Order: sequence, then C-alpha cells, then structure tokens
Amino acid sequence: MLTTTTRAAALVAGYREVRALTERLAGPLSPEDQVVQSMPDVSPTKWHRAHTTWFFETFVLGQFAPGYQPADPAYGYLFNSYYENVGARHPRPERGLVTRPSVEEVAAYRRAVDHALVDLLTAGEDRAEVLDLVELGLHHEQQHQELLLMDIKHVLSVNPTAPAYRGRPHHPGTPSPLAWTRFDGGQVEVGHDGDGFCFDNELPRHHVLLDPFSLADRPVSCGEWLEFMADGGYDQATLWLSDGWATCTQNGWRSPSYWFQVDGDWHVFTLDGARPVDPAEPVSHVSYYEADAYARWAGARLPTEAEWEHAAERHPVEGNLLGADELHPRADAGEGLRQLYGDVWEWTASPYTAYPGFRAAPGAVGEYNGKFMINQMVLRGGCCVTPPGHVRPSYRNFFPPHSRWMFSGVRLAEDAR
Amino acid sequence: MLTTTTRAAALVAGYREVRALTERLAGPLSPEDQVVQSMPDVSPTKWHRAHTTWFFETFVLGQFAPGYQPADPAYGYLFNSYYENVGARHPRPERGLVTRPSVEEVAAYRRAVDHALVDLLTAGEDRAEVLDLVELGLHHEQQHQELLLMDIKHVLSVNPTAPAYRGRPHHPGTPSPLAWTRFDGGQVEVGHDGDGFCFDNELPRHHVLLDPFSLADRPVSCGEWLEFMADGGYDQATLWLSDGWATCTQNGWRSPSYWFQVDGDWHVFTLDGARPVDPAEPVSHVSYYEADAYARWAGARLPTEAEWEHAAERHPVEGNLLGADELHPRADAGEGLRQLYGDVWEWTASPYTAYPGFRAAPGAVGEYNGKFMINQMVLRGGCCVTPPGHVRPSYRNFFPPHSRWMFSGVRLAEDAR
Amino acid sequence: MLTTTTRAAALVAGYREVRALTERLAGPLSPEDQVVQSMPDVSPTKWHRAHTTWFFETFVLGQFAPGYQPADPAYGYLFNSYYENVGARHPRPERGLVTRPSVEEVAAYRRAVDHALVDLLTAGEDRAEVLDLVELGLHHEQQHQELLLMDIKHVLSVNPTAPAYRGRPHHPGTPSPLAWTRFDGGQVEVGHDGDGFCFDNELPRHHVLLDPFSLADRPVSCGEWLEFMADGGYDQATLWLSDGWATCTQNGWRSPSYWFQVDGDWHVFTLDGARPVDPAEPVSHVSYYEADAYARWAGARLPTEAEWEHAAERHPVEGNLLGADELHPRADAGEGLRQLYGDVWEWTASPYTAYPGFRAAPGAVGEYNGKFMINQMVLRGGCCVTPPGHVRPSYRNFFPPHSRWMFSGVRLAEDAR
Amino acid sequence: MLTTTTRAAALVAGYREVRALTERLAGPLSPEDQVVQSMPDVSPTKWHRAHTTWFFETFVLGQFAPGYQPADPAYGYLFNSYYENVGARHPRPERGLVTRPSVEEVAAYRRAVDHALVDLLTAGEDRAEVLDLVELGLHHEQQHQELLLMDIKHVLSVNPTAPAYRGRPHHPGTPSPLAWTRFDGGQVEVGHDGDGFCFDNELPRHHVLLDPFSLADRPVSCGEWLEFMADGGYDQATLWLSDGWATCTQNGWRSPSYWFQVDGDWHVFTLDGARPVDPAEPVSHVSYYEADAYARWAGARLPTEAEWEHAAERHPVEGNLLGADELHPRADAGEGLRQLYGDVWEWTASPYTAYPGFRAAPGAVGEYNGKFMINQMVLRGGCCVTPPGHVRPSYRNFFPPHSRWMFSGVRLAEDAR
Repeated sequence: MLTTTTRAAALVAGYREVRALTERLAGPLSPEDQVVQSMPDVSPTKWHRAHTTWFFETFVLGQFAPGYQPADPAYGYLFNSYYENVGARHPRPERGLVTRPSVEEVAAYRRAVDHALVDLLTAGEDRAEVLDLVELGLHHEQQHQELLLMDIKHVLSVNPTAPAYRGRPHHPGTPSPLAWTRFDGGQVEVGHDGDGFCFDNELPRHHVLLDPFSLADRPVSCGEWLEFMADGGYDQATLWLSDGWATCTQNGWRSPSYWFQVDGDWHVFTLDGARPVDPAEPVSHVSYYEADAYARWAGARLPTEAEWEHAAERHPVEGNLLGADELHPRADAGEGLRQLYGDVWEWTASPYTAYPGFRAAPGAVGEYNGKFMINQMVLRGGCCVTPPGHVRPSYRNFFPPHSRWMFSGVRLAEDAR
Repeated sequence: MLTTTTRAAALVAGYREVRALTERLAGPLSPEDQVVQSMPDVSPTKWHRAHTTWFFETFVLGQFAPGYQPADPAYGYLFNSYYENVGARHPRPERGLVTRPSVEEVAAYRRAVDHALVDLLTAGEDRAEVLDLVELGLHHEQQHQELLLMDIKHVLSVNPTAPAYRGRPHHPGTPSPLAWTRFDGGQVEVGHDGDGFCFDNELPRHHVLLDPFSLADRPVSCGEWLEFMADGGYDQATLWLSDGWATCTQNGWRSPSYWFQVDGDWHVFTLDGARPVDPAEPVSHVSYYEADAYARWAGARLPTEAEWEHAAERHPVEGNLLGADELHPRADAGEGLRQLYGDVWEWTASPYTAYPGFRAAPGAVGEYNGKFMINQMVLRGGCCVTPPGHVRPSYRNFFPPHSRWMFSGVRLAEDAR
Repeated sequence: MLTTTTRAAALVAGYREVRALTERLAGPLSPEDQVVQSMPDVSPTKWHRAHTTWFFETFVLGQFAPGYQPADPAYGYLFNSYYENVGARHPRPERGLVTRPSVEEVAAYRRAVDHALVDLLTAGEDRAEVLDLVELGLHHEQQHQELLLMDIKHVLSVNPTAPAYRGRPHHPGTPSPLAWTRFDGGQVEVGHDGDGFCFDNELPRHHVLLDPFSLADRPVSCGEWLEFMADGGYDQATLWLSDGWATCTQNGWRSPSYWFQVDGDWHVFTLDGARPVDPAEPVSHVSYYEADAYARWAGARLPTEAEWEHAAERHPVEGNLLGADELHPRADAGEGLRQLYGDVWEWTASPYTAYPGFRAAPGAVGEYNGKFMINQMVLRGGCCVTPPGHVRPSYRNFFPPHSRWMFSGVRLAEDAR
Repeated sequence: MLTTTTRAAALVAGYREVRALTERLAGPLSPEDQVVQSMPDVSPTKWHRAHTTWFFETFVLGQFAPGYQPADPAYGYLFNSYYENVGARHPRPERGLVTRPSVEEVAAYRRAVDHALVDLLTAGEDRAEVLDLVELGLHHEQQHQELLLMDIKHVLSVNPTAPAYRGRPHHPGTPSPLAWTRFDGGQVEVGHDGDGFCFDNELPRHHVLLDPFSLADRPVSCGEWLEFMADGGYDQATLWLSDGWATCTQNGWRSPSYWFQVDGDWHVFTLDGARPVDPAEPVSHVSYYEADAYARWAGARLPTEAEWEHAAERHPVEGNLLGADELHPRADAGEGLRQLYGDVWEWTASPYTAYPGFRAAPGAVGEYNGKFMINQMVLRGGCCVTPPGHVRPSYRNFFPPHSRWMFSGVRLAEDAR
C-alpha cells in the first residue's frame, strides 16, 4: 500500500492526466456544439466539463480546503446532477437551456478548481477520506468522458447535416466465424477482490452457483445482425419480450440506432461520420430488448453478469478502449474468447441489483449507485470510448432496457451440455 | 398419480367449481359496472368473464373438440389478451369501449363453452396434453378471479360516489409488536418440487446460496405506515430509489393507494366501502417503490424471493385467502412467523427473471410467463382475494415497481448477525 | 303573445314531447351502450339523460318549486356540465367512469323530475322567469338529443364489431349537377328577429355589409369528395391551412371520418351500420380544415355566416331533420337552392364571436354560450339528427376546426362577378 | 411613384440598413446564446439571422440572379420556415438542435448573400417583380428583428441565472388616470389604402359598419393589473372564456408572463434584467385569455380590429418603438388618446380572418399570411421592439389566444351610449 504522501503525489499526476483528457475530448467542439441537449438522456459537453469540476469543488474543496470560496454560487444549482443530499438542482431535461456560463467561463472554472485542488494535495493533505474522494472524483470524471462522447455523437447525429466529430477513414474488417468457449461453473466468486479502486456496487465479493455454460468467443457482428433483420427479426412479436415489442413498434425500430438506409444499403453514423455498415465489426447501439430478441432468434441467450465476470476475470483488461483512439468497435479476427474488454458494452441477462450485504457509502456519495438499482440491466466489459484504466472484471455498468445511445452490443451464451 | 379417467373426472369437478366462482364474484355487479375500464391496467369484469372462456375455447375446444365451431368469430379478436401466436387482438387500453357483446351475451358464451368443455371431458378424452391445458385454464381463471376483484375495486373507487362492492362492517383488529425469525441460509433449494401443478416460471427447482437472514414475523401494519408518513416518509428523497422518488413526486403520492383524508383522519376505500384506517391491519396497495423506501426508513430491507420461499416452504398454505371471504387484509395478533399466505402479496427485492435453465412451453401457452420477465419485481404469498388452492410456496407473482392496484404489502428482512 | 296560462299549458305539452323523444332515442341502447365514453368529446347516453334532467332540477325546481328536495345530492356534482356558477363538477373526460347511478336509476330520476316539473307548471306557475327557463331547458334538451345520436354513433363505431344503432337498408340516391345562386348583398340584417325563442348568441339583430356572392345550390356530395381524394386532396399541403395540415398529418386523415376501405372501395359507418359510400349523398363528418381545403381545391370558398343567413332566411325551415327519421344525410336531386336545413351542418368561414352589443344573460345560464366564443367556427342549418323545431335561420352552431364527430358538411360560396 | 432606378437605389440603402440592424441586435449575444431554442415557439438567434438571409437567397437570388449558386445546399432545408412550395424543411421544434453551421458561418452566409443581392440591385435590375420581393424581404426581416428580441428574452429567462440582454437602469414612470375617447362609428373604411408597402392580409380596403364606441386613452397599466390580481382575477372562472380558464389552471397562471414574486413583491424580467414591477407602465406579456378576462372584470370589452384601426388611422405612427431603444413598454402620463403605436401590441376581439375579397399572392410568398388565418386573434399597433417604419394603421399582427411571449397588452373599449 502506498504511503499517503506517495498516494497524494500519484493522485496529483492522475488528476492532471484525467482532467487534461476531458479538455482534449472537448477540443474539436465549437461553443455551439457544447451547449445543446438533443434528448433528456444527453447532457451538453459544457455541462459535463462543469459538473465533473463541481464534483471536486463540492465534495473535496468545499469540505476540506480551508477558506475555499466557490467559484460562483449559481454553479452548485446548475451543475449538481442528482445528489439530493447537497441541495436543489437544475432539472436534467433543461440542461440544454443554459447558455451561460459560456464555454469559456466553464474552462476558467475548470482551471480555478484544478489550481485549488492541486494546491490542496501538494500542501501535505494526507487524510485518506480526502484522497479517497479525489480518487472517486477521477473515476467519476472518466465516466463522464465516456458520456461526453456518447452524448456528442447523439447531438451531432440529430443535426440534419450529420457533421462528424472527427474525420478518420474506415478500413473494413475481416469477418470471423463464431465459436464457443465452455465453462464448468460451480460455486465461484464474483465482485471486486479488494485490490485497487472500485465502486460500492461491486461489493461485497461473494459466492454464486453457476451451471455449466458456454460463451460466444466474440460479440455478434453487424453481418449477423443483418441476417436477423433479413429474417424478420424486427417483425416477429414472438421473438421479443412483451415490453420490448411494445417499445420496438412504438418507436418504429427497424435496425440498431444510428443505422439508416441509402438506396437500400445500410449505413451507420459514427464519430468519424457516416459510412456503409461493415459486416465484420461488432454491432453496437442496440437495446437490451433487441439483444434479447436476437439471442432468442439465434437459439441462444444472454449471459448472466456472474457468468460474464467468471469468464472474464482471468483475461487481461486490454482491447479497443478509448486509448486505442478508434472511437468505434472494430472487428477482431483472432481466435478464442476475445474482445471482452472494449469495443461494446455487453448486455447481460442480469437486472441491476444490490449484491448480498451491499451497503451504500454514507452521505452524498452514497447516492452514487444504490439509488439506481431498479429498472436497469447490467452491461459488462467497457467499450471503445471507455478510458483505459477505468474498467475492471467486476465493473458493473447499467442502463434501462430501451436505451440505445451508448456503445452496447451482444455476446451470446448457452447452457452447456 | 391419477389415472387419466380419474383425472378427467376430477377436472370436470374442478372446472365446474372454478367457473361457478367467477360467476359468483360477478354477481353483485350491474351491466354498467361490468363494462367500464378505469385505467389501462384494469379490465372490465365482462372482459374477464369472456377472456377466461376464450382461453378454454381457443386452446382446448378449438384444437381438440371435433367439429367445434367458435361461438362468435369476433370473440377471438376481442378476448385474446396477449397471445401473439394466435393472431391479432383488440388493444388492451380499449377494452372499456366494447359495449357489445352484452353482459348477458357473455354469460351465454360461458354457458356454451362450459357445455362443450364438459362434454369433451366426459366423452372419454384422456390425452395428457388436453387435460394439462384444461388444468392450466383453471389456474388461469383463478388468476382472473383475483384480477376481477382488484379491477372492480378500482372501477368503483373512481366513481365520485365510491359505491361498495359489498357492505360488511369492519371490526378493528388488535395490534401486535413486531418480532423477527432467524434463518441460517446456506445452499438451499428453491422452485417447484414437481408435485402437482405449477407454472413454467417456477421451474426448474435449483440451488441458491443464502447468507443468514431474519424475516419479520408479520407484514408491516397500517399503524407503522402512519409513523412512516408522520416522519416525512413521502418527503425525503434520500429514502427512495431515484425512479421511485420521481414516480412519487409526479403522482403526488402521500399515502398508500385508496387512502384519503377526512378532516385530518386517514380513511381507506375497501370492497366493503370506505372507513377509517385500522392501524392493526397490514398495509396494502403500496408500490415496490414505497415498500423499498419504507424498509430503508425502518433500517431494514426487503427479502429476496429465495429467502422468502426458503422460509415459507415449511409452512402450511393457509390464511386470509379468498375462501375466508374477508376481501381485505386483516390483523393477526398471533405469535411467530405468520401471515405468509394470504392478506397481502409481499414485495421481494428480486426482479422477475428466468430461473437457470428455464424453458418456456412451446406454442402459444409459452407466452404465459416468459415474455414478461423484464421491468417487474416478484411478490410472494397470495392475498385476501387469491382463490384458495391457487398459491404455493414457489408461486411467483410479479408487477412493475410503480403498480399499486393489487393487494400488495411489505414484510421486512435483515441480514442476520 | 300567449297569456302565461296558455304558455304554461303549451310548455307542459312541449315538455312531455321533448322528454319522451329523449327516451325514445335511448330505447335501442343497452345499459352497457349507455355508460361508455369513447373519447373526451363524447358523453355517455346515460349522462345526457341525467344532465338534461339536472338542468330542469337545478335551474327550475331548485329555485322555484317550493320545498323541492334534490333527487340525490351527488347528482349536482355528477351531472353539471360546465356551469361554474353552480359549483364543482365531475371532470368531463371521466364521465365514462361512472357506473352508478345505473341506467334504471337515471330513468327514475327523469320520472321524478318530470313529475315535479309538470306539477309546478300545472299548479298555476306563471312567472315569465320560470317559463323562460323551462323553455330554455327544452331547447337545451333538444341539443342533447342531437348530441346523444352523434355520441352513440361514435361509441358504436369504436367497437371492433361496429354494431348498428338501427338496421334500415340504404337506397342509393341520384347525383345532381352543382349549380349556383347569386345574391346581390348590400347592407342586410342578420340575427334573430325577436319572434319566438332564440339563444342569446343570436342577438342583437344587426346590419352587416355583404359584397355580391354566389352559393352552391346543394352541399358537396360524396362523389365530389372522392374526386378531391383521387386528386391528392389529402396529400397537398398547399391546399390546407397551416394548422389544418398539421392536424391532417398528425391524425393520418385520408378521408372523412367514419369512412374506411374494404378491398379498395370506400365504405361508411352509419347509425344503420356500415355500407358502401353513396356518391350522391352529401359528404358528412368533415372538419373545418377539410372543408376549407376542399373549397380551395374547388376554386371556391366557404360562405360567411352572414351570407348563409341572408340566403337562408327566406327559405322554409324544412328538410331532412330528425323528424324525417333518416339519421343520415340524403341526396336531393331537386333544383335551385336547397338542403339549407337538415342533412349536414354547413361550415362557414366565420369564427364564433359575439355580435355587436351582445350581452350574456345574468347568472348561471349566462354561461350557456358566451364563454365558448373562442377557437370555434360557426356552422349553420341543422342536420339529419337535429330535432325539428330546434333550428332557425339565425341559429349558430359552433365547433372547433378539427372536430369531425358531428354531421358536418360543406356548401361552397364564391365572390360574384 | 419612384422610377425603378430610384426605387432600386432606395432599396439598396434600405437593405443595408435593415440587414445591419439585425446584426446589431445579435451583437450582445454569445454563440451559446444564439443556438438555443427554449420552447417550440422560439427560434434561435442564429436561425433568425440565417432564415432571413435564406429568404433573399431563395426568392430573389435563386430566381433572378444569373448564375447564382446557393451558399450551401443544406441551408435550403435548414432555414426554410414554412414554405411548402419550396420543398421539405427542418421541423420547427428541432431548430435548437442545429449546432452547425456555426454563428460565424451564418455571419459569412449573410455577407455572401448581401454581396450578391447588392450586386444584383446595382447592376440595373429594374423588374418590379424583383424589387417587390426585395421589399417584402426587408419587411420580413423586420418581423424577425422583433421575433429575435422576443425569443432571446425567453431564452435568457429560462436560464436559472436569468442573465440580462442589456443592463440599463429603470426609471419608474408616473401613473395617469384612465380616460375614454368616444367615436361615432358608422360606415367606415378599413384596410390598407394602397400607398406604400403592405402585406396581403391588409387588403382589400373595404367598408365596415361600426356602432358608436369608446376607447381607453392608454393601455392598461401594471398597477391596474395588480388590482385585478388582488381582486381574485386569476381565481374566478366566471371571468374567463372556457378555454381560457382551462389554459390558466393547467399552466398555473397567477400573473402576466415574466412576473415573479420576491418576498411577496412582484418583480418582472426584462431585456435589461429583473426588477420590481413598475405600476405606471403598461402591462405586457398577457395572453388574449387574460386580456379578455381583465376586460370583463373591468366591466368593459376589447376593441374590434376595425374599431382600433378607425380610431388609430388619424394618428401619426410614432411612439415607443424599437427606435426609442427602450426594449420595454413605458408609462406615458400625457393626455388624450395615446400610445396607439409602440409599447405593447394591443389584443383585439377580432379573430384573424380574410378580408372580403382577399386573394393570397401566387406562388410561395402566397403562404406568407393566408394559411395562418385560423385559431389566432388580431393585435394592433406595434410594440417597443417593433422596428420603426414597420408598423401601419392597417397592420395586422396575430397570435393564438394562449401566447404570452410577445409584448402584448390591453386597451379597453366600450359600447358608447
């Protein structure tokens, strides 16, 4: 274990790195791009930049930096996301109405808080409580880095001119056949093992019973999804959960999100602009309802989160994450169980619930996870816009079953004979 | 095991009994009462009477009775609830628009199908497939008997004059203190054990791991709920799940459903009319969100469905069920773990999912359960309007977390020291 | 002018006649038919029967009959339509939730009020104030007779089996060519001339200036409307008012209301059931938006209400009204300006506003008309379900421009050369 | 009449002036301010700047400038407001989702079109058709100058920090008593008299009959409105039109728009920021429903548009218009009939309909007015953000009766004895 001094120094370095990455991600975006909210789920880039800053200001500087004065008294109201413990806040669906502070004022806010935070840490602050909150703040900001990219993708996509965030050319991948890997199951352990940072929802580590099962060795590809579509996947109610079919028909779903047809051929909008769908690459931006219907059509099922974690925890956390700078899932024509980390978040069959013995942290940061444990399904493994170092085998992401604006895909599972 | 002849004979007797009970339940209701749909969740009484009949007509007579002609070709469209496999159907929210067939025509439909069904069974029909479907149909009709009472309670309640279904006087109960029963947990078995009828969602029986836990020996009472209300239970966001708080504030919830204030005192609308709330009786008509908030306020939690089943399966299936003819939960000032069956369905902390290895039945009846395994929470134990013989230790009821029109209550649990 | 005694006697006779007609109109309807509300605009038959009774009870008996006790204290709340002056009332969109009082109890309510009202009038009551209110109540009930038929037509139409109110066969009419009648205009008078009953909105009679104009000699026929449809009438935005086009596309209008296609041929639902559209008969159940678009397509315009009244006031008030017992507009292959009264209400280009010097009556009955003078267009002439004796040259009916469930049609006008 | 050369030269000067004013009005706004749409009625500042430019590009340059190439092919879709004749367009409620083109690109678009347009006019273009369209485009842009200020006021107001567009201090006015001016009426003429520019909806000039009437000599003041509020104006249903009362209660109106309470005192948000309500100044931002209810409360009525025009046409078109640079209505303690022009648009009792003999212009510009002649009420006289030279005695503005985001006020009228 690090001494607190060493830990503080490491946190300063980590802090600078994480904070700088956020600014780099916002770099290609104009002030106009950064203020718009294209649907209630989406937050403006400017808001992400300010909210992550507010987190450090409120939970670290406001509580522990002697004499710290908030940058602007209005920011506590504007940039609180959902912490009921720290007071009233601006309604989420109205985040796109806030034209001021300007993008430039938000940048200044970031600089002011960075300055004060680094001062605090380098002035000998060594209380674990403070350092823990800084560390939490960094993981929190990494989550918002992923959200920033998910959200700006949606913002740009609803512009009739569909401008690109970036303009890299796409090189089509090589399709690979689907194979399966078998696991014996039995009484296994899941949950975080106590080494390094984790969120409270990954605890406590505990035993579960698993029947023998098999996992597909790679995510479902766009080519396979096109077969599902061609076979009437979006037309047959009996493939779908009841709520899923209602959602599908009400929204007129005919394909994954961001797909559209040009003269009969399917195209996809990406952060690098629109282009033809590449059959080799993993399908992305599908809802739980679609993932579940696809699995039923394929004669398989989705894995539980325990199955996924048991299979994945022996694998190195490597892959097409944000560090690879692809910003889109890519084909991997390798062999064996692969692409567990990065590319696409993988829907599991597990509702997002508390682990046995789960305790939320006391105070406002206890609102981080527990209160969302309803009406959501767990996804695992990170995706192509997840910052490296952020995801773990025990990491639990979660979204409602109808959501499609995140990089969500499908890995099949089966009961093993 | 019964011989098929004996089984057919037993089914004829059961059929007559179940079908007659439905008619008895509809007895106090006028044609006007039977046609109205007070919200999309509710179905008209007339519809329940016709739909349960359609079930036998479609899945038994239509398939197995030689030369059977449907009573009316329109009924297949009007009275199919949600079976995608058997064709198009009338939209659920519009069931209250169907003034014809009349209540009297529906009664004639019931008689015609009863006649044909009994004829079929008494004519030597002994195929297990047919008898299984008749048995399923009876359990299906029992579910609709409970729904009929839940639904008519809602229909009558939205009438500004709030007429009673029946007019029995209420005798207040005796409050009893709350005590706890401890269970060691370990590797236990849950799911139906294969003896007698069960729905497919109760299978397969399988092992689960349970940590030591305690269960409250009786459901939460109205008196305790009044304390929760007095302590600001409906005002403190931090007691609630995030979706729960949003639902609570959007709907202006200040108490359980069917409660209202008269000169500052809380009253409750029951099937026997409106009267003051009785502090001794179990609280009912609370949503999962409220049950969860209450448990958090009480420093406890809700049980998982496995904990509940493990605790309950050694208890006789007895209690304040429909046979007791109370039509409302009642206080039980006894001792020890009690009121597991009847009174109120008990919310569990378990989302409604497939058991490991679950397989839906083939064909239309396979739509009975599996396609609803999303966005719902499991409730256990039956309630005061559940027909006797219908509920079991392994019986899994399920509703969305915001629903309140069923007789749903709360039993607390705790991690055991 | 009648002496009050003679007037009271005439009112008793009129009262008996009008009240009996309401009951005759409800005759073919079951209790189930009479309780349902198929959309917020529609009221249940039972409600019409009770509300017209409440009108006499509240405004006549309650104020002027010594010692009169209301039949039921709840009825004042349940059956007040929109009179703010006489207290709170049940929300209009929830009229279909009121299963009790039953249809039979409403019939008893009608009998009790009839008895008391006739007693009052025959006991020598001769105050003009009272007799005026009775007369107003009769005209009010006649309006509800028309509404009862409009409303039950809608109720029956939303039943998937589309049952008929009655079952008379249809005899197709003979188409006639469209001709025009010219009027010189000038300074003319409109508004009620003071002889006999009128509503306050028909007063005061006043002068208006009219340019020379021509009126089509008969309403637009279904055959002509089919030409409009075939020519893309429902596809060309530039034919429509902006709000009209938005309404048309949002609701997917492709034809008049109650029309539907069977194997490519247009059929229409009528009070006598469904049958093929008859090209010769006047088109009905079109909105103002459609009427206006049709007129633009035809190179004409809609008449103003002053033009219509000026043209119509020299014509006898005769035609296919409720007395003809057709319950549907019919072709008239006659010659000259015709079908001004009955068949279909004719949309005018005039918004419903107060005449110069208009004064609403004092008290609750002053709410009868004035407060609806916004967002509505005037229709003239009565229709096939308007009770005879109810309509006049100066009679102003009014509906919002999107409404289609009344018998509304189109008569074209042109500026004259 | 001007020669076309002189007219072209005058138009070039006018063009430069109008176009420069738009840019000046946008001057205080950041890119972030200019992109947001705070409700469907509101358009972003950037959109106004681009749309007015598109108008000249589409209707003048695209049709008449030889070899003109559109600045960007996407702009025709993005910046068409409602012209069905010139093709598909971006949905109005989504104007705030368009982050690109940027504010700077829109400024460049304006410069490019300005250059081409001035080139065209100075190159000897003398066709009346072209010059008429340029003139129409200038009046069109003036309308959008007013809209720009109305809209940005709303945008800034929904920001929780309520920033000001500008920061001038307010100097309270002096209240003046209300007096009346009598008019004899008779057969008078209304509509544009043919001298100078007018919109098609002001034609043809025609005769109307007016009874004797009186007009209040100034608009209703905030002080008088506070009396209305104190007397329960927002609580008494019987003061309101039926639709008005429904709108009032559904929206929770308790005061004019932009008013709010601080410690019991009423404040108002203005383009110069928030400050206490000044009782002397004209009330503004009231809906037709409120204006009508106020008039009823005051024992008066609203004037018809013919009464207003007859009274106003002898008065010079002067007052607190945009040229005065107040950006808010102001008190005028003068004497006699005053403040007819500027300060606040005055609601009339007249629905917006076609004048007798009205003909819309052929082609796309014919969509300018006629298709909006439904569901709107006429307002007269211009307001404090109406560009000088834009309003006339015959000018007809129009809004739906529930709208409140324009500078709309009330002048009372009475039938004269």
